[in-house]
Amino acid sequence: MEKVYIYDTTLRDGTQGEGISLSVDDKLKIARLLDRFGIHYIEGGWPGSNPKDMEFFQKVKKLSLKTSKITAFGSTRRPGVPAEKDENLQKILESGVETVAIFGKTWDFQVTHALNTTLDNNLDMIEDSVRYLKSHGLEVMFDAEHFFDGFKSNPEYALHALKRAEQAGADWIVLCDTNGGTLPDELAAIVKTVKEKLQTPIGVHCHNDSECAVANSLAAVRAGATQVQGTINGYGERCGNTNLISLIPNLQIKQGYVCVPEEKLRLLTSLSRQVHEIANVSPPNNQPFVGLSAFAHKGGMHVSAVLKSPETYEHLPPDQVGNARRVLVSELSGQSNLLYKARELNIELDKSNPACKSLIQKIKQMEHEGYQYEGAEASFELMLRQGLGETEEVFSLESIQILVEKTADAPVKMVAVIKMRVYDEVVHTAAEGNGPVHALDNALRKALSSFFPEIRKMQLTDYKVRVLNGEEATAAKVRVWIESSDGKNRWSTVGVSANIIEASWQALSDSMRYFLLYGKEPVAMK
Amino acid sequence: MEKVYIYDTTLRDGTQGEGISLSVDDKLKIARLLDRFGIHYIEGGWPGSNPKDMEFFQKVKKLSLKTSKITAFGSTRRPGVPAEKDENLQKILESGVETVAIFGKTWDFQVTHALNTTLDNNLDMIEDSVRYLKSHGLEVMFDAEHFFDGFKSNPEYALHALKRAEQAGADWIVLCDTNGGTLPDELAAIVKTVKEKLQTPIGVHCHNDSECAVANSLAAVRAGATQVQGTINGYGERCGNTNLISLIPNLQIKQGYVCVPEEKLRLLTSLSRQVHEIANVSPPNNQPFVGLSAFAHKGGMHVSAVLKSPETYEHLPPDQVGNARRVLVSELSGQSNLLYKARELNIELDKSNPACKSLIQKIKQMEHEGYQYEGAEASFELMLRQGLGETEEVFSLESIQILVEKTADAPVKMVAVIKMRVYDEVVHTAAEGNGPVHALDNALRKALSSFFPEIRKMQLTDYKVRVLNGEEATAAKVRVWIESSDGKNRWSTVGVSANIIEASWQALSDSMRYFLLYGKEPVAMK
Repeated sequence: MEKVYIYDTTLRDGTQGEGISLSVDDKLKIARLLDRFGIHYIEGGWPGSNPKDMEFFQKVKKLSLKTSKITAFGSTRRPGVPAEKDENLQKILESGVETVAIFGKTWDFQVTHALNTTLDNNLDMIEDSVRYLKSHGLEVMFDAEHFFDGFKSNPEYALHALKRAEQAGADWIVLCDTNGGTLPDELAAIVKTVKEKLQTPIGVHCHNDSECAVANSLAAVRAGATQVQGTINGYGERCGNTNLISLIPNLQIKQGYVCVPEEKLRLLTSLSRQVHEIANVSPPNNQPFVGLSAFAHKGGMHVSAVLKSPETYEHLPPDQVGNARRVLVSELSGQSNLLYKARELNIELDKSNPACKSLIQKIKQMEHEGYQYEGAEASFELMLRQGLGETEEVFSLESIQILVEKTADAPVKMVAVIKMRVYDEVVHTAAEGNGPVHALDNALRKALSSFFPEIRKMQLTDYKVRVLNGEEATAAKVRVWIESSDGKNRWSTVGVSANIIEASWQALSDSMRYFLLYGKEPVAMK
Repeated sequence: MEKVYIYDTTLRDGTQGEGISLSVDDKLKIARLLDRFGIHYIEGGWPGSNPKDMEFFQKVKKLSLKTSKITAFGSTRRPGVPAEKDENLQKILESGVETVAIFGKTWDFQVTHALNTTLDNNLDMIEDSVRYLKSHGLEVMFDAEHFFDGFKSNPEYALHALKRAEQAGADWIVLCDTNGGTLPDELAAIVKTVKEKLQTPIGVHCHNDSECAVANSLAAVRAGATQVQGTINGYGERCGNTNLISLIPNLQIKQGYVCVPEEKLRLLTSLSRQVHEIANVSPPNNQPFVGLSAFAHKGGMHVSAVLKSPETYEHLPPDQVGNARRVLVSELSGQSNLLYKARELNIELDKSNPACKSLIQKIKQMEHEGYQYEGAEASFELMLRQGLGETEEVFSLESIQILVEKTADAPVKMVAVIKMRVYDEVVHTAAEGNGPVHALDNALRKALSSFFPEIRKMQLTDYKVRVLNGEEATAAKVRVWIESSDGKNRWSTVGVSANIIEASWQALSDSMRYFLLYGKEPVAMK
């Protein structure tokens, strides 16, 4: 049971991917998820490169992570500048991390052509930088950029560069396939050679340009690497980095290595989907292990075979990675999932209750229409309690009008008019806003606040729009997701419609209804 | 220079993928593309399974393909029925193909538990079926379903089944990793063993459930397989099949095998994109070799390194596979990025031009406000040409009103009223839609179509909304991204505002303006 350390660089290399952009807050949310999953190292950013990354390093300390070590990324010192005067290395120290990964050149051609210095100078830069950071008590990883290309071009020099990092006290030496072109056999042979020459533990950092990043990382581990770097869902520049979501179950379930605590593997699917959600990326249905189609069975022959003996068309049991089998006939998992959920929410529900069947029908119907309750558990709870006749009708809508007016250059003006019934009274009011949904939010809040002054304590803290079938462009369905908070608790709601106003109304009104009905009780942090 | 035969099953196994559905006409189009590219075998369908597949086999004969052999798929005869009376085998003969792939069981557990027959009967079924098809002069491939699981469970029986196919005269024996769970090392060792025991050429058929289908196929070839089965873009059930688009350049460019005529490799990107288009799948930007981001470079350091020596961040020259390098315009970019972009767009811009400085300022300003030009190159081009005083004002807005009305349960009604100036005329018109943006799109299109009837040829093909600072919830800024197409070319535009209507207006009007100004010229596929 050999241990393989997992090093996540979603927050740094992942954001190099086209269309991936994370705010400091997004990064903190992801760090919390990674820590809970049991990832060993989280590369938070490059403190020398921009103020946003530095802000992350300050704020992440307050999260008091339990498992993950926060790591800073940076480069070796510049030519001609001593380590203690190098701004980039200073910023790493300032960031307050205990672990750092610094990259340096090991490809002779790169040293002379990109770095414009001599081969000897480069070796000094590596040794100095590692030694300096070690002298400040940090755990130091040396990322050998372009190592495989470097080794193929000049194996002696490439190995020599690693040796210098080792002599300076590096705790890890990480071999990078920076341009993603190396194939598994060749990569494994090189890792094996390096392993024989060094004492220091070895890591590997692969890119997916040849669609082999996962296989390359597996091959490296078999050849002796004990650390793998990658990103959640394989985000990263060009074609992405090693996808940890696929790598971890391959290593742990299929090859018997230990990466994360055994019980955490069941969080794999939810980790992948939550990170997609935060990064605003549509999860690919065919994503291995965690995709919606990964254990979906179409057509008669496969389905009946799978129901008889799942191993005929499933390479592992889907619940082992938190995913679920999907078959078109009689989804038996429905009921047990529902009972499990109800128990979680302290709702009494027995399988003999006739409401079970209609609730399962309802959930299927809603999910078919595009609702997703995974990240919107307040909407789910409302639906469940409604189905069981438990909720009270606090307010109901009579009508909404929204007027938008835009002229050539003046800012858009808009007003929302709302008419609703609160208990037995009719309220008719209006409010402005920055956009149609903002105006609606203001109007609804205004209408409710004379009855429920406590509504002023709650506010919307996040709002996301996802276009579900983008191919139909502006006529497509949208899913609106809202997160609210009363300062202590947070809850999330969802709405779906071809119309963004309608979808937003659903999520907004669910959020306020949830707060008014259950807001006094502590609500679990979602 | 060893030859590896490529067997494409996009038209059969590919359509088992969730969301992939091809008409007979779609299949014929794809067959023509595959033939032109130099694929050896095209599996057209399963003639015994449905009339659509039979229709394809009839119609494909009229295409007179030059390179590809059309292949039918089917199973071995049923238990207890002689081959000449088996309906499934009869249909294969009726289809008129010269090559056939029939699958049979080689996993003992599957024979007794799924097929419900004896181990000996199954061996007879394999031998009879192969012999029967050979006696009709067909080239016969035996697809050994679940071979790797079968071999692990009972290697003697699995090999025995292959031997019987060989004795009956099979031209190829294809080892299938049906549930996609085998990893490269294990798979290679099994292929090697089989290779030693058989005279018949060996093929391999992998699935991507472990994200290793391409690596598995490469490993099989190194172990002696000379045929690989897969699909274009890796379509296929669950997580898909071996992606031939990645496999072929890996084998041919990197490992020196011969798969297709050398000059055809430049068609790789267009083959991939055309098949995505026919299958109505949005091409993943990060798809290896052919994706829009596969050779995209962000950020200053990488860009200047790549411009000096491309091999630093490119594993092969993009034009070798018909793709192109893209330098992404972003906050981090400086003058060299701008000049590079201008050259790409055939815009004359010299670094001595004083507009350079103000354009860079403008880009930085816009990106700071939340615009992202990376994936919105039409908006970028408009801004650039505007900055250089090159564009013409085709139309300008006077005013927009949007009215939304929702009552308790009735569907939302909405109308957009638009007043605009087109050249010197004022147009005032209105349209409805599914949502406020859809109504606006309809109204704008209506206002323009009497002046520019060609606008009817263009349509929006994708629409995305990203909330930029979600923490401010419904008062947050949104970025709207729109992709449009005129059937031949695609272009993308962007808009940013706290107001979704304003942001959508920017992206919509940019898209139409771009089409009207530059739509007649061929526009590079963005």
